[in-house]
Amino acid sequence: MTRKLRMGMIGGGIGSFIGDVHRKAAAIDGMIDLVCGAFSSDAEKSKQSGKALFLNDDRCYTDFKEMILTEKQLPEDKRMDFVAIVTPNHMHFEPAKMALENGFHVVCDKPMTLTLDEALELEAILKRTGKLFALTHNYTGHPMVKQAKALITNGDLGKIRKIQVQYLQGWLSTSVEKTGQKQASWRIDPKRSGIGGALGDIGTHAENLVEYITGLKIDEIAADLGVFGEDRVLDDDGNLLLRMENGAKGTMSISQIALGEENNLAIKVYGEKGSLEWHQENPNQLITHWLENPVKVFTPNGNDLYPEAINVSRIPAGHPEGYLEAFATIYKNFATHLMAVKNNKTIENPDYPTVNDGVRGMQFIYAAVASNQDNSTWTKIK
Amino acid sequence: MTRKLRMGMIGGGIGSFIGDVHRKAAAIDGMIDLVCGAFSSDAEKSKQSGKALFLNDDRCYTDFKEMILTEKQLPEDKRMDFVAIVTPNHMHFEPAKMALENGFHVVCDKPMTLTLDEALELEAILKRTGKLFALTHNYTGHPMVKQAKALITNGDLGKIRKIQVQYLQGWLSTSVEKTGQKQASWRIDPKRSGIGGALGDIGTHAENLVEYITGLKIDEIAADLGVFGEDRVLDDDGNLLLRMENGAKGTMSISQIALGEENNLAIKVYGEKGSLEWHQENPNQLITHWLENPVKVFTPNGNDLYPEAINVSRIPAGHPEGYLEAFATIYKNFATHLMAVKNNKTIENPDYPTVNDGVRGMQFIYAAVASNQDNSTWTKIK
Amino acid sequence: MTRKLRMGMIGGGIGSFIGDVHRKAAAIDGMIDLVCGAFSSDAEKSKQSGKALFLNDDRCYTDFKEMILTEKQLPEDKRMDFVAIVTPNHMHFEPAKMALENGFHVVCDKPMTLTLDEALELEAILKRTGKLFALTHNYTGHPMVKQAKALITNGDLGKIRKIQVQYLQGWLSTSVEKTGQKQASWRIDPKRSGIGGALGDIGTHAENLVEYITGLKIDEIAADLGVFGEDRVLDDDGNLLLRMENGAKGTMSISQIALGEENNLAIKVYGEKGSLEWHQENPNQLITHWLENPVKVFTPNGNDLYPEAINVSRIPAGHPEGYLEAFATIYKNFATHLMAVKNNKTIENPDYPTVNDGVRGMQFIYAAVASNQDNSTWTKIK
Amino acid sequence: MTRKLRMGMIGGGIGSFIGDVHRKAAAIDGMIDLVCGAFSSDAEKSKQSGKALFLNDDRCYTDFKEMILTEKQLPEDKRMDFVAIVTPNHMHFEPAKMALENGFHVVCDKPMTLTLDEALELEAILKRTGKLFALTHNYTGHPMVKQAKALITNGDLGKIRKIQVQYLQGWLSTSVEKTGQKQASWRIDPKRSGIGGALGDIGTHAENLVEYITGLKIDEIAADLGVFGEDRVLDDDGNLLLRMENGAKGTMSISQIALGEENNLAIKVYGEKGSLEWHQENPNQLITHWLENPVKVFTPNGNDLYPEAINVSRIPAGHPEGYLEAFATIYKNFATHLMAVKNNKTIENPDYPTVNDGVRGMQFIYAAVASNQDNSTWTKIK
Repeated sequence: MTRKLRMGMIGGGIGSFIGDVHRKAAAIDGMIDLVCGAFSSDAEKSKQSGKALFLNDDRCYTDFKEMILTEKQLPEDKRMDFVAIVTPNHMHFEPAKMALENGFHVVCDKPMTLTLDEALELEAILKRTGKLFALTHNYTGHPMVKQAKALITNGDLGKIRKIQVQYLQGWLSTSVEKTGQKQASWRIDPKRSGIGGALGDIGTHAENLVEYITGLKIDEIAADLGVFGEDRVLDDDGNLLLRMENGAKGTMSISQIALGEENNLAIKVYGEKGSLEWHQENPNQLITHWLENPVKVFTPNGNDLYPEAINVSRIPAGHPEGYLEAFATIYKNFATHLMAVKNNKTIENPDYPTVNDGVRGMQFIYAAVASNQDNSTWTKIK
Repeated sequence: MTRKLRMGMIGGGIGSFIGDVHRKAAAIDGMIDLVCGAFSSDAEKSKQSGKALFLNDDRCYTDFKEMILTEKQLPEDKRMDFVAIVTPNHMHFEPAKMALENGFHVVCDKPMTLTLDEALELEAILKRTGKLFALTHNYTGHPMVKQAKALITNGDLGKIRKIQVQYLQGWLSTSVEKTGQKQASWRIDPKRSGIGGALGDIGTHAENLVEYITGLKIDEIAADLGVFGEDRVLDDDGNLLLRMENGAKGTMSISQIALGEENNLAIKVYGEKGSLEWHQENPNQLITHWLENPVKVFTPNGNDLYPEAINVSRIPAGHPEGYLEAFATIYKNFATHLMAVKNNKTIENPDYPTVNDGVRGMQFIYAAVASNQDNSTWTKIK
Repeated sequence: MTRKLRMGMIGGGIGSFIGDVHRKAAAIDGMIDLVCGAFSSDAEKSKQSGKALFLNDDRCYTDFKEMILTEKQLPEDKRMDFVAIVTPNHMHFEPAKMALENGFHVVCDKPMTLTLDEALELEAILKRTGKLFALTHNYTGHPMVKQAKALITNGDLGKIRKIQVQYLQGWLSTSVEKTGQKQASWRIDPKRSGIGGALGDIGTHAENLVEYITGLKIDEIAADLGVFGEDRVLDDDGNLLLRMENGAKGTMSISQIALGEENNLAIKVYGEKGSLEWHQENPNQLITHWLENPVKVFTPNGNDLYPEAINVSRIPAGHPEGYLEAFATIYKNFATHLMAVKNNKTIENPDYPTVNDGVRGMQFIYAAVASNQDNSTWTKIK
Repeated sequence: MTRKLRMGMIGGGIGSFIGDVHRKAAAIDGMIDLVCGAFSSDAEKSKQSGKALFLNDDRCYTDFKEMILTEKQLPEDKRMDFVAIVTPNHMHFEPAKMALENGFHVVCDKPMTLTLDEALELEAILKRTGKLFALTHNYTGHPMVKQAKALITNGDLGKIRKIQVQYLQGWLSTSVEKTGQKQASWRIDPKRSGIGGALGDIGTHAENLVEYITGLKIDEIAADLGVFGEDRVLDDDGNLLLRMENGAKGTMSISQIALGEENNLAIKVYGEKGSLEWHQENPNQLITHWLENPVKVFTPNGNDLYPEAINVSRIPAGHPEGYLEAFATIYKNFATHLMAVKNNKTIENPDYPTVNDGVRGMQFIYAAVASNQDNSTWTKIK
């Protein structure tokens, strides 16, 4: 293509955390321009947000419907190519559906929808419309996560036996939602979050990371969810046992009341021939252990990497990449795919999370809630 | 006292791992002399073992019965004061019982006995004889474990909400028992190990560490045990959910097939006001997180420690103490207690693991096996 | 302003490392658009590079002179606002001079110039033209470097006594320049690098970091430079003693033949009341030690930070920022300053490296080379 | 031998740091009994110290002369075999000389003597008497230090190019000597410490470690010593440049005013084919980097070790050994050598530090002081 892709954003007004992340992530690789947005249902706030982003007033919309319908009327050389949906969970499905049905591709934050039914419907809409859809399971964008996946895909670790995954945060240790903290307010509210609290917000990341890295489905889970914050109704903590489709076993621990933890997503996978360990807070290391050899530590653009890891490293070894770069890789791979489609080309393996990951995430939430209600009975994810 | 205590050892012949550990641990603080042993049921091997330890032939016995009965006849200024039992699990109860009933105190390796019944009987014998009994849950001897316990006892962490404990090894990843590896052979054999494999060998350490540090009992567990090694019948892996008596929840992951792991015992405890993290492989750090303050890292003999931690540090901050020193602390506290008793003095809190810890450990094994057999049903530890 | 700033780039064609870094860094915060470039002296390559960046052919120039003169003629609403100079050292001064004298602001890679004379002349030109000038000592953009500086500025560490700084790389361990590796070729060539090799490429970063964090000038140095690579003439390694203006002492170790090191820039500063430690490869931690308190570890957007650190953190604690984000902070602060200037506003402390840092860096290189030639005699930096 | 070796101690009364360390180190491996001591020049204190160690009064002496002469008269089956000298530096030479000349072997703390002349005289005495002499450069006893040395000896790292060594402590950051702190009082006193302060106390360890691991002599040094503590006359800080006999270069940084540092001895060695890194505070890791392979981390009793490292590991991988165990290895190797000698056997390479290390250490101190007095002029170590 001879031009950048044009992105419209739904949500992400001033003060938003994840909207800002999406914008920076979309900007890094220079393939995408933000051209319009329905940043807030408050017209004035939407315009103010757009202005701070150097957008013209006429591309700042008050709601996503207005945006989609108006943009659709714009000439092809001005019109947005895709929307990025960065609203709370309950506001994912409707905008995604409308965008797709009006010819726009979609990037959507996770978890994909409010309910499993919505997820399945979205899957059908995508099949029908043939549009592209990326779900921002951003942690799969890290070079060392790609290397981890490649090590297992290539059989270096042998048959997988054991998995430990955790996603621990402490920011809901106290009742911050009662202080008006915006991020907390909607996450503890079933109307906006769905039936899972921490499960949806971070558990789906953990679930997605396990299945992405190992290439194995989680077959069933036994969940013990906790609700520690005063007056909360949704889980803010969870401990789960895992059984994988190949017979491997494991644990998952998630929490938003793990005081002192910042964003401690970490995974260990043990196979018959080797094992690996990755920590999101120090993402530029992949520690591996081997039956016959000492510990090896891989680094982005370091020695002995698989192409999948090299391809997504932007800078030389020793120059740390972080959260935004991994997030940007989702956007980059999506944008590369979309440009190819627009050029009538095919891409073999676009390598970004899609609606399948989204459906899987919703099934995980539903299985965990069901297991927990049944005193941690083993429950299939399906 | 004007003399060192005299120790007789049961088991621990040449080539033994844990016997050598007990001897070194008993030696470090200069309070105990090894004076005799029934190192092996092979008379020649017992003598050879004793010779390598600079013992006279006449104090090297062929079996523990001979040793106990012979030593009992020796004059008070020669006779051993206590026995150290370092045999496989199935050989703990009989020697302990006989030693106690013949007037000797006992230090015993863990798990305490082969069966829960034996454990309860041993408890009764101790009550009857009034002798001292130490169980070598050595990890509780680390200065930073003492500090962890003190932080919680003093309320610094607030009410405990969440626990993660793991004890991961990889040495049974392959079928080393088929190569004649002695350590492996008895550990995978129910006749010598009991009904728990990894459960007894390392799970009891994890269980003991949780209850020691938090001061809380584990109320119930849901266990999913794995048997990954070919032809094995005992668990070599386990994933457990924990519910504590105060409502806290947690996970326990144990394994001897976690390839690449050496001796990765680690614990995290999250409270309402703070949290802590300790790793056995780097035992001279206690990492803590706080609601209002940055991470603090405690070190032995470093700043701001509780007396319980200072008391068991032998050398200045920055001079790492290790596995043997922590093990030695069990012996030191036991020896100090025994010397006091011999001097007709009382010690308030001798601070070493006893028969209560041993009974608890056996109850844990039995509950885990029962839960696992019932497809991970929640099961009380009692 | 109601629009983004417009950047023209000099150098940075396809395959360039640092050009790509500058573009990504400039893009992240959404304040700057790349609008033109003289990416290569090869006309075709320049156009190809521009095309890959979605630029029109007519904004892709063959040399910087053409670009500066042509852009100057463009209407104000199209014309670039500033140039980013990302060429090898010998091509910094001329483009900077010409850009400044033709009304454009400048962002320039380091070291600032080929010679000290050029540096001093550039200083004079800037005084004369009144344009803005940023030198990309990118490591000063890290939140934890800002926190380190603030701790010292606020006196928390007390009087500084001792400094250790190192910048270690291993990529010149072998004669990669003989394989045609482009990055290596010019760095080992005095005509393009100047009189310093590793000194200019990484030593200036170390020098700048020391003076930035401590707020102290290095008074004199004793340098022992090494030339280990076959047929090289410039230093690829250096060990230096430091004496600071306040009496503090220290060491600096730099190397590009420290095999296995990737980009190991690290600094420790010891004061009378506290000390600090920062590592570029794990930049989201600032480890501090205190006379009366345990170790504290600061993290971006974590607890207890000074505003200077909070201001430059883009995402919540635990979400690692990396090399590009710190680099972007230089651009962001420069862009904020330039926008203010364009709006006739004043900014108190723009906080980005300027020509003063550039002159200082050249003086450091010259002092180190002189000291080394005189068998490591103490030599003033001036 | 059929008995343990018998040790007499000079110095090390109640409250002594290093005396207690020597006793524990000598005890761990069960080869040595403490049988007598001149623990203090205060008769009562010497007896009290001996009593606390369960010694009889008649083996507690008031001074080393009395001890040596009395023990010499004891029957061979009671008499001590060797003395351990654990007094301040000024009290090393006389006891060592007298012990050797009266037929006793010697273990001596470092630095070996007060002056270089004493060191050379001791060397001559040893040659004359043929007795054994061990100098407790304890850090060379660590398994991972042995592995480091073996990697270099076997050429795995190729020709050595660069060395970084540091030994940083912070305990003299404040004027603790003015509070009566015993350890500090003599170390800052030239009459008891010699011409080097930190140089002798910790600098000799750093120097010894460099030469032990690399197998290379330090050819010349340029030293800049600091005296930061109020009213001190001896160095409490030092920064040095190193030139090795093979052309390698390096830095050494030592300090006792590096606030917050506990006992941070660390070394990095870079060769043409690989490099290594070891930290005393986490001594059970040896991190290595390779030209063609990822980072490898060695651990005691872990994979791929040289026999030299395996031989001195007491317990399985993952069970940390520490300061006392490394110290004990010096005693163990000395005791093994002494037992062999007593059995008229020969040992090829006894592998413990001897008088040569002691002379070398004194030469290092003298060269550093001379260089510093001459404004850091390069000075040979000889």
